[in-house]
Amino acid sequence: MTPELLFAMPGNEALAKTLAGALGCGIGTLVMRKFPDGETYLRFKSAIGRKHIALISTLADPDPKIIPLLFAADAARTMGAAQVGLVVPYLAYLRQDHSFEPGEAVTSRAMAALLSQHFDWLVTADPHLHRYKSLAELYTIPATAVHAAPAVSAWIAAHVENPFLIGPDEESAQWVSETARDINAPYVTLKKTRRGDRSVTVSAPDLTTIDDRTPILLDDIISSGRTMLEAVKLLRAQGVAHPICLAIHGLFADHSDQALIELGARLVTTNSVPNPYAQIDLTGILADGLHTLA
Amino acid sequence: MTPELLFAMPGNEALAKTLAGALGCGIGTLVMRKFPDGETYLRFKSAIGRKHIALISTLADPDPKIIPLLFAADAARTMGAAQVGLVVPYLAYLRQDHSFEPGEAVTSRAMAALLSQHFDWLVTADPHLHRYKSLAELYTIPATAVHAAPAVSAWIAAHVENPFLIGPDEESAQWVSETARDINAPYVTLKKTRRGDRSVTVSAPDLTTIDDRTPILLDDIISSGRTMLEAVKLLRAQGVAHPICLAIHGLFADHSDQALIELGARLVTTNSVPNPYAQIDLTGILADGLHTLA
Repeated sequence: MTPELLFAMPGNEALAKTLAGALGCGIGTLVMRKFPDGETYLRFKSAIGRKHIALISTLADPDPKIIPLLFAADAARTMGAAQVGLVVPYLAYLRQDHSFEPGEAVTSRAMAALLSQHFDWLVTADPHLHRYKSLAELYTIPATAVHAAPAVSAWIAAHVENPFLIGPDEESAQWVSETARDINAPYVTLKKTRRGDRSVTVSAPDLTTIDDRTPILLDDIISSGRTMLEAVKLLRAQGVAHPICLAIHGLFADHSDQALIELGARLVTTNSVPNPYAQIDLTGILADGLHTLA
Repeated sequence: MTPELLFAMPGNEALAKTLAGALGCGIGTLVMRKFPDGETYLRFKSAIGRKHIALISTLADPDPKIIPLLFAADAARTMGAAQVGLVVPYLAYLRQDHSFEPGEAVTSRAMAALLSQHFDWLVTADPHLHRYKSLAELYTIPATAVHAAPAVSAWIAAHVENPFLIGPDEESAQWVSETARDINAPYVTLKKTRRGDRSVTVSAPDLTTIDDRTPILLDDIISSGRTMLEAVKLLRAQGVAHPICLAIHGLFADHSDQALIELGARLVTTNSVPNPYAQIDLTGILADGLHTLA
């Protein structure tokens, strides 16, 4: 079961178009603009009738995007939509998954409750689950997580001769080792210690075995970029220059893309978040995820 | 029944403090900050226990503010709060109250549903209801609208000798006439034609009767400022300079405060939205509204 009509929230038009093509579904027009006072105006210009529709919206920098998204879902339902699904290539608010200090909001649960109230299902790519095992622990609607790994492996195989994979922290170890096996490449994992939102230190094993291979730092997400920046610096200190920094989700907060480029890195991400480095297309993988919906 | 603890969302600390004083309730500490990726971190640093609490958040430029507000309400409830109320000095999303074109989202209803789901009650000042008669048509929780009129009348009486009230459009007529009666001052109403979000024209009756009185343009809200700007220009064209532009809610989108000041106007608003012109304090009126809660 796939939606009959797909509507892009602003900024998601490109992926909406390719995804609708892959699904063989229609693509609708949703007009959104801001009133001078910051309120959002929304209008579905394609008839919704009793159709099963989906909205597509990535959620990097989520707070200003969520309200228009919820209001669009509500409007579609008011207009009679049989189902309203959400394709969210990058899903936010998975980070805060526990009250570490008394009184801390567990925003991952609040976010899941909110989206579960307003949508009938969601499909996302590689949610940063951390302490959760699956989205089903959080979301009360069918929530499918697709994996970008095959697209990442395919991109490396097609574009990089003699890759050497490097996981910038232990959390990346499993995924990096699997990708290394996939493409038959050697790998190592660095060790990260986080000291704050924007402060991390990284230590490395011996990297002299890289020889003339192309180093690829592989992570699921580049957010503040601190982990990647420390890893790139550590590589340079060991004589390993010009790595590829490859992430599924490229948020690049704090202009960390520029900082990484200035250190000699080449950036590659999927198109889960629109950015100039989005060379790995998730269309096929997201379409497969939608096909698995009950 | 009033809350036992009041928590300010960022930017609402001043009104939270005076309101807690007027209510004789405690004031709690809510820490909010942004992660580098734009997600919001929230922590209640005051114990909530089984208390009846309220959050205070004005909602000018609403989209980025609503998600943190809902997450804070959810967190308070998770921590055991007996009730979670909302003091919202300026309530947004009342403008879109009808589908004028097919497919338009009626965001006033979506907003009301969202706040009704997350809060047990709300108190606001002079909602811009337009086609609705009362908040009860929209909100399924007890929603009290207090009226700033007495505070506005008191401010004029205390600060302006010989005022002459001018309503910038017909919508303001009733309020302006009531205020004029309150303070025993003459008034007129201008006629407004809206041609778009940022475009209005205004026409006026004969204003020569103003003589040496102080002209006060009175409206419930200054948003894009177009209505006030046209009214000030029209007054100037008729030889009436230096009016006071007095509004309950001063949003001043598009730097319209600067444009009004450059045209010789003096700005006065309530403190429903923090701005440099907030000379009329709503503390007492909001406190009275909270006291009327069932």
